[in-house]
Amino acid sequence: MLKVLSCSSMPRSYFLQPKACLALQKDVIHMHAVTGRCTKVARNINMERLRNNYLFPEISARELEHIKKYPNAEVISLGIGDTTEPIPDLIASAMSDYARSLSTPEGYKGYGDEQGNKALRKAIAQTFYKDLAVKDTEVFVSDGSQCDISRVQMLLGSDMTIAVQDPSFPAYIDSSVIIGQAGDFQYNSGKYRNIEYMKCGPQNHFFPDLSNTLRTDIIFFCSPNNPTGHAASREQLEQLVEFAKENGSIIVYDSAYAAYITDESPRSIYEIPGAREVAIEVSSFSKSAGFTGVRLGWTVVPDELLYSNGFPVGHDFNRIICTCFNGASNIAQAGGLACLSPEGVSAMFSVVDYYKENAQILLDTFASLGLKTHGGVNAPYVWVHFPGKRSWDVFNEILGKTNIITVPGSGFGPGGEEFIRVTAFGHRETILEASTRLKSLFP
Amino acid sequence: MLKVLSCSSMPRSYFLQPKACLALQKDVIHMHAVTGRCTKVARNINMERLRNNYLFPEISARELEHIKKYPNAEVISLGIGDTTEPIPDLIASAMSDYARSLSTPEGYKGYGDEQGNKALRKAIAQTFYKDLAVKDTEVFVSDGSQCDISRVQMLLGSDMTIAVQDPSFPAYIDSSVIIGQAGDFQYNSGKYRNIEYMKCGPQNHFFPDLSNTLRTDIIFFCSPNNPTGHAASREQLEQLVEFAKENGSIIVYDSAYAAYITDESPRSIYEIPGAREVAIEVSSFSKSAGFTGVRLGWTVVPDELLYSNGFPVGHDFNRIICTCFNGASNIAQAGGLACLSPEGVSAMFSVVDYYKENAQILLDTFASLGLKTHGGVNAPYVWVHFPGKRSWDVFNEILGKTNIITVPGSGFGPGGEEFIRVTAFGHRETILEASTRLKSLFP
Repeated sequence: MLKVLSCSSMPRSYFLQPKACLALQKDVIHMHAVTGRCTKVARNINMERLRNNYLFPEISARELEHIKKYPNAEVISLGIGDTTEPIPDLIASAMSDYARSLSTPEGYKGYGDEQGNKALRKAIAQTFYKDLAVKDTEVFVSDGSQCDISRVQMLLGSDMTIAVQDPSFPAYIDSSVIIGQAGDFQYNSGKYRNIEYMKCGPQNHFFPDLSNTLRTDIIFFCSPNNPTGHAASREQLEQLVEFAKENGSIIVYDSAYAAYITDESPRSIYEIPGAREVAIEVSSFSKSAGFTGVRLGWTVVPDELLYSNGFPVGHDFNRIICTCFNGASNIAQAGGLACLSPEGVSAMFSVVDYYKENAQILLDTFASLGLKTHGGVNAPYVWVHFPGKRSWDVFNEILGKTNIITVPGSGFGPGGEEFIRVTAFGHRETILEASTRLKSLFP
Repeated sequence: MLKVLSCSSMPRSYFLQPKACLALQKDVIHMHAVTGRCTKVARNINMERLRNNYLFPEISARELEHIKKYPNAEVISLGIGDTTEPIPDLIASAMSDYARSLSTPEGYKGYGDEQGNKALRKAIAQTFYKDLAVKDTEVFVSDGSQCDISRVQMLLGSDMTIAVQDPSFPAYIDSSVIIGQAGDFQYNSGKYRNIEYMKCGPQNHFFPDLSNTLRTDIIFFCSPNNPTGHAASREQLEQLVEFAKENGSIIVYDSAYAAYITDESPRSIYEIPGAREVAIEVSSFSKSAGFTGVRLGWTVVPDELLYSNGFPVGHDFNRIICTCFNGASNIAQAGGLACLSPEGVSAMFSVVDYYKENAQILLDTFASLGLKTHGGVNAPYVWVHFPGKRSWDVFNEILGKTNIITVPGSGFGPGGEEFIRVTAFGHRETILEASTRLKSLFP
């Protein structure tokens, strides 16, 4: 319990919150003994509305608790989607050389363009959007797609209505709550009042029933999807773009996992005719090049994307980038450029293939147990169905019996209940060991 | 003129905006020929309220215009405060080695803690806040203080009232407008309706008259100040902390230039007793270690800082960091750690001393011209007074006659009128050449 003197009483919701971020943020634990004098500044109502702590810190907290209880447990994490394999040498070398050159008068660079260096913007446009008419000037280089999602929310502001896939990556909803779009959390439904949840499950081929979806200003759509691993088909995306056009909505399309697509599913929303008039695309080097810690991503805002008054969305996004951001690290950008050389692309995809083989091992494992799985073919995530079970219960059961961390599907929204997400990121021996343990769990 | 078909007419304010970001953002120029179909999404009213384009892109645009007109002009920039000297070898080498190790199984790292790596947080607390009781867990590592200012605004939300020094670094006001705190721009005063401008000039020793300052929730305060170069004295900061305590306000203290302090002025707000209960501090490696392009900064949120309901501010800031940010680049963090070794600190301060010598050359130059200057001793900026002249006119005159870029004081707020800011960042030969040219301008 927080001991605070001389302040008005703590809001009840504080005590209801799980202790998630605490695990990574020891100061909050220290604060339990703090007896500070309150300011007269009211807490941001939007922060107060945030129902759960961020999913992954919550999982970390449970992992720490488990380790504390079983200090000798050899825990395997198939939880957070964190890359594990070394960055290909030619890419790491490019960053290393760039960093070293910063100590020379010829090589030193100060501020770069806020939007990213021109060569990298051009390489992104040419590599990922070949024949799709994306101009280098429409590409804004960033420190990652999660950060860009929040910057997109700053751009949009609190007066927007939004729709999300259910289940979906928590950052869409959480950033929406923080910026003030979401309204109150509804305990009965597990949903925020003003957010339109588009249920995506096996029953509808992981694509929302658009005839029963309310019109919103913004539609967040992630494909290949995190957590379900489903890549939307061309036909599905055509329906989505058509729906956005009819409603005058803007799609914020997250293609962070596009490198994992094996089949004919589109790798970019701009493969769909007309998408330039209705869609922003955010993407990342994190999962393709192993840049989760290096931090590099990008956002595309096409020139044709216009607000209702005709004002170009890209103009305002540029302003956000200039004011709220100051460019990605120039060393990371040098790495991005190396990724997009012909040898770099080939090296990146070798690592992607390695993770895809891991995914196949996991798919086979769960299939041998008679469990129904989704994803894993076009994405580094396997989405496993446990009919009739609560996903946190499955999480706890697997952790308790096999010392394996997974992600409970309900952490991604009510539509994720009965599922767990398992990541294919990991060293091969770890994935094989996990497979062995899982087979013994459900013999 | 923008040609847009089938949309409602463009807002008049669009045409009133200077073309600033255009210079860096060619797509906006391309858009002039675009005839997209409008969405039904209304432009964010806060973005509409942003009166001027961001100052530095505007200056870049004028520089480009000048070069176009005088292609042979050898332009010297004393404008944007961008570092020019190489990063000390031991710091660049640390980043280089770290980047190379990412290609090895032992050296590879994926996601780090969102708050920054523990060793760096500890080193920041010990180096910059020695004896000031700042805990490593209160330090949040970031990609720079400008970015942190926007994240602090996300934390605070739209319902806050804010005060800024006038003149001040534009990011405080611009981020305030974007988040929705500022209200309408008042053309007669050049101010936003809901922002309290605290005039700071020679007449009040660059410290606001607090007896005539309205109470606000938040007080942005930058010391050493950008643009005036004034470092607040201990007595001034004691008054500020007392004022915040009396009003129950939160100070957001920007100490990005603290490394330049030569005299006894405090280097951190936490040198003032009681500041832990009323102040957040944002700071940066940009200007001390030459990391403007590498991107690394930090924010301190003390455990004792509480909202009116007793809820700890640090808890919410941690949530912002976990949701809207994903940690600074691990390579940049390795550089930050090298900066804070004893040899690193010494190397950093050698570069700072070099810039300080530049500042002295500029101070002497303007003094020899009979102009009154401020700053330049505790900051890399010299603030030059041109009584009775408009600062953009002075900017144009200096550019036209000497091919030197400066920054017009009014770009930092109405209180900056009659002044220009000159940066001391630059190669020595450039500063000397600038000095020669300036002396010929006002013989």
